[in-house]
Amino acid sequence: MSRDELDGDHKYDRSGIEFFEDQSVHEYWRSANADYHRSGYDRGHLAAAGNHRRDHKLVAQTFVLSNISPQVGKGFNRDAWNRLEKYCRWRARRSDGLWVCTGPLYLPARDRSDGKLYVKYEVIGRNHVSVPTHFFKVLVWQTDGRHWDMEAYVMPNAPIDDDKAIESFRVPIDTVERAAGLLFFQRLPRHQFRSINGKSV
Amino acid sequence: MSRDELDGDHKYDRSGIEFFEDQSVHEYWRSANADYHRSGYDRGHLAAAGNHRRDHKLVAQTFVLSNISPQVGKGFNRDAWNRLEKYCRWRARRSDGLWVCTGPLYLPARDRSDGKLYVKYEVIGRNHVSVPTHFFKVLVWQTDGRHWDMEAYVMPNAPIDDDKAIESFRVPIDTVERAAGLLFFQRLPRHQFRSINGKSV
Repeated sequence: MSRDELDGDHKYDRSGIEFFEDQSVHEYWRSANADYHRSGYDRGHLAAAGNHRRDHKLVAQTFVLSNISPQVGKGFNRDAWNRLEKYCRWRARRSDGLWVCTGPLYLPARDRSDGKLYVKYEVIGRNHVSVPTHFFKVLVWQTDGRHWDMEAYVMPNAPIDDDKAIESFRVPIDTVERAAGLLFFQRLPRHQFRSINGKSV
Repeated sequence: MSRDELDGDHKYDRSGIEFFEDQSVHEYWRSANADYHRSGYDRGHLAAAGNHRRDHKLVAQTFVLSNISPQVGKGFNRDAWNRLEKYCRWRARRSDGLWVCTGPLYLPARDRSDGKLYVKYEVIGRNHVSVPTHFFKVLVWQTDGRHWDMEAYVMPNAPIDDDKAIESFRVPIDTVERAAGLLFFQRLPRHQFRSINGKSV
């Protein structure tokens, strides 16, 4: 996203927009609004609605349920995660252009009773929509037409204290890559970055 | 697999063959023998070694760790799962050709304490190799040059009683498809099958 995209002449909001099923996903793996009903989870955006306010159609498209994941509402989706989304826009406004990759993670945790590592996550609704244990954002931006910077964040899908700084959720890029099964921005050699997670490369 | 492939002139066994890492998998997601060490799990085959005994090289190739998944040894890998593999070969010998798709599943179970559905599975070793909760096999075979039959099996990755019949693990094809995220043999319209899971179509 860019400064111009974020601060154009028009700023549409999300009022009146409804979440809708992604008909391009096979029905076996398509989530529905009913899956979230009484689950206790918000329908949380991956690509953020607030990044697309210049065009009502674009805002509406972010409400496709394949862009949505069950998120803890209070303390996460409406709070810490929202602050991270706002931080991305703040960064974008101070850059020549920013790219952000967002997704769910299913991270293992040690079980105290047997000392072993387990991945454990809830599934909700008739379609068994997975509730991620964590979410990530990997940001890359350019400034002054030549500097590249990169940051990676992982947040637990859980209430997070309001006074916890966003920086405390920074993790090495490869931590996200290993867990997500994805390589990010690999055509941009890491040694060409000015900084990664705030540290000079 | 076919009768000829199974019962050729040569029958090589697995003695002296060692499991090896799949160098074509990125190191972030590549499993190693060390991951299984002292985990309590067998290195269980997906494509079965016993299906490829006509050629020593083919048997050896099934030992690539990307074809291997952590399996409970006693009561599963060495018992019920082995019986299912033998059943596949039995079917193949009585057919014009048999195709089998095998893979891991991570199925949800209800937690008694809160009544919610969770997927929970162990991860082992430095590479966090996932221990599937279940495994599936989907079989399709042809007989008399015209009849098509199909069966699907799901077995828990757990000790299974010796006297439990293989048929009791049959499940509807779409149960596997929904859980695996795969559609099986979809170019063969289901109405063209003679039977699915032993029942006339």
